[in-house]
Amino acid sequence: MKPILIALLASLAAVAARAEPAEFPDAAGSDPAVVGWMQGSPPPPGSVVRYADGSMYSFPQIRWSFANFRQLAPTRNIWRGSGPPAALPRALRDDIDALTFQPLGGTGTMTWEQSLAANYTDAILVLHKGRIVYERYLGVMTPHTQHMAMSVTKSFFGTVAAMLVAEGRLDPQALVPQYIPELKDTAFGDATVRQVLDMTTGLKYSENYADPDAEVWQHARAGSVFPRPPGYSGPQTFYEFLQTLQKDGEHGQAFAYRTVNTDVLGWLIRRVTGQPVGDVLSERIWQPLGAEEDGYILIDTVGNEFAGGGLNVTLRDLARFGEMMRLDGRFNGRQVVPRAVVDDIRRGADREHFAKAGYKLLPGWSYRNQWWVTHNEHGAYAARGIHGQAIYIDPTAEMVIARFGSHPLAANANFDPTSLPAFHALAKHLMR
Amino acid sequence: MKPILIALLASLAAVAARAEPAEFPDAAGSDPAVVGWMQGSPPPPGSVVRYADGSMYSFPQIRWSFANFRQLAPTRNIWRGSGPPAALPRALRDDIDALTFQPLGGTGTMTWEQSLAANYTDAILVLHKGRIVYERYLGVMTPHTQHMAMSVTKSFFGTVAAMLVAEGRLDPQALVPQYIPELKDTAFGDATVRQVLDMTTGLKYSENYADPDAEVWQHARAGSVFPRPPGYSGPQTFYEFLQTLQKDGEHGQAFAYRTVNTDVLGWLIRRVTGQPVGDVLSERIWQPLGAEEDGYILIDTVGNEFAGGGLNVTLRDLARFGEMMRLDGRFNGRQVVPRAVVDDIRRGADREHFAKAGYKLLPGWSYRNQWWVTHNEHGAYAARGIHGQAIYIDPTAEMVIARFGSHPLAANANFDPTSLPAFHALAKHLMR
Repeated sequence: MKPILIALLASLAAVAARAEPAEFPDAAGSDPAVVGWMQGSPPPPGSVVRYADGSMYSFPQIRWSFANFRQLAPTRNIWRGSGPPAALPRALRDDIDALTFQPLGGTGTMTWEQSLAANYTDAILVLHKGRIVYERYLGVMTPHTQHMAMSVTKSFFGTVAAMLVAEGRLDPQALVPQYIPELKDTAFGDATVRQVLDMTTGLKYSENYADPDAEVWQHARAGSVFPRPPGYSGPQTFYEFLQTLQKDGEHGQAFAYRTVNTDVLGWLIRRVTGQPVGDVLSERIWQPLGAEEDGYILIDTVGNEFAGGGLNVTLRDLARFGEMMRLDGRFNGRQVVPRAVVDDIRRGADREHFAKAGYKLLPGWSYRNQWWVTHNEHGAYAARGIHGQAIYIDPTAEMVIARFGSHPLAANANFDPTSLPAFHALAKHLMR
Repeated sequence: MKPILIALLASLAAVAARAEPAEFPDAAGSDPAVVGWMQGSPPPPGSVVRYADGSMYSFPQIRWSFANFRQLAPTRNIWRGSGPPAALPRALRDDIDALTFQPLGGTGTMTWEQSLAANYTDAILVLHKGRIVYERYLGVMTPHTQHMAMSVTKSFFGTVAAMLVAEGRLDPQALVPQYIPELKDTAFGDATVRQVLDMTTGLKYSENYADPDAEVWQHARAGSVFPRPPGYSGPQTFYEFLQTLQKDGEHGQAFAYRTVNTDVLGWLIRRVTGQPVGDVLSERIWQPLGAEEDGYILIDTVGNEFAGGGLNVTLRDLARFGEMMRLDGRFNGRQVVPRAVVDDIRRGADREHFAKAGYKLLPGWSYRNQWWVTHNEHGAYAARGIHGQAIYIDPTAEMVIARFGSHPLAANANFDPTSLPAFHALAKHLMR
């Protein structure tokens, strides 16, 4: 059988595994601590999760792998520094699990606790006025271990890039090739840094995870975050892949969520700072934030970070990052991010540009500097990643939610209905 | 060209690179910070160090890769815990660099500072009476980053196994298959735990790094710590490889340094504790020791740790481990390792068994619980790894030396002449 055919069948099998939600075991039935992935000395064959066969992205294996990605692939460390962690005072409440809300598009109600299972939650923490009011670790997650943040990664890179803009080191109106000449003859040749930051580039790039031919899979294979088929001869690194991208439509006309924009941002950050992005994140975020643990990020075979989705972080450090944003960039006794950067993100971007992307569950939202802005009555904004990763910041309710998940289906549309109204109901509850 | 031929040529090329010491650039000429391995956005092709082509084990690339191994392969974390690090007070001395000694087998003298370059030292720290009197980071090493410990790893595993023996959880007189029935029909079928601990098993296993057919390379490929040739169909994991080992000679007759003994130890530790060894090291060593940073360990494709040589640790934490041993197992306000375990190691093992191994540079030494015991007039003992990794404990001089290196040649015999007399001269100097 030809390699390309094997690859196609493998891709189709992967898609098939994603296309039948009715067949997935529920959260309890897929609990990785109960199933026992990778337990034993050695783990018996049926319990092994591997990189090479792509099983680390299969369900229910992702319930283990998203909490253990460094055991599957090379990573770069994000050092927390040597100081004590910033305190997160505890004021746990026992009235949250029973809170009810109405899932989007449904008529019944669901409790907060039920939503954890519905969303295949791996860990969730709620800060109210800076205190931990709720904290749960499920499956194989613990307070000190990192979980894949998926596209929540983008909001970290967007924030850092916006800091470089605020410092005058990155010109938002400049064209990308001013910093990265290698991208001159690509879709990014006439794109501005601002368009990349707000994802209004017009790119031939499909992010449809259910389509085996989608460019998102080529992207993942180029960066070695997904195994390559035998005989693979495509791009060898993230940056090589970025140089293959072609334009589709015009830039600056509409929001179009494309992970590669963030990989270009990662490249811009490296070019402008002259540092690996892992070091940039350590110096600009982890250390000033008083992170409790190191983070880490997936890298390709030449050490380029997967800026679009490769960050791994603990739940509490994710919450610290959100809390810093809620507090106008000030946390742990210092101004971590300039207030103007936070204000700019909170204000959001052009809502008509966003509307063109057709997200039925996100009416009136916008996307700014790699953050999702709800424009709801609380001014909430969020970092969002596939399979359930989230930071949700509600400035009015003085609430920050950090969540990790391993939902069998990738797209947020699969769990937004049991997440967004739950987050908003909790905000209103905490304000009472 | 057939895959096997490519593989053979690759192996021969690797050996050729190891066999011409005269052609190696010196320490300054191979300084990885100057050469610029993996620097740039992205790193230019000539500066890339990769896993897939084995270049991470080539000289001078090892000068970068030994300090960055997690960027090349999957790893398991060894958590330091959440408390403050155990203090290492500083009392730096400026009279050490000029100290002179006579290299083994030579007639001239060398200064301590010259020995750093001669040994391709990456980092070195000296504790005297618990205080840092000397600390240097060279090349790309920093105080907070981990370096490959190579076979220094063995002394960590030997110490933990000896702790399990002291607790009665591991019987030193039991045959290995009592705990690991999978090894019944192998060389370890009639070996005792004690023989494994002291490496007096008789095994058909060559540790000659200069021989491409040596079992040590098969071992490395099985565990995925060295890339596999195209079409590889050998053992897929460390433990599968251990099950292929056959006996050569009798057990208990002579010391014979064979890395696989330690991998059996790792398996024994996992079996007896029911935990991944990364967790065992965290709970028994890193956390009670008050380590400053997490450690990490290389793992194979099913998560089995490379007990024989896969530990990565910071220089200061290596020194803390040595200092704990010097202080009879007591450090950071607690008894980390039972005193009886330390005493047993210090006493050493049968020196006649050791003599049979023919180490001309190590007359009168012995090997106990994976530690090298000098039996010199100071009662010094050591953990030793290829390319220059070491912990050297001199109880009489109240001195502990931790060292990382990336010498072009693997075997300790290449740098013992410029290391052992330097260490002993410094001990005598500090006692003045």
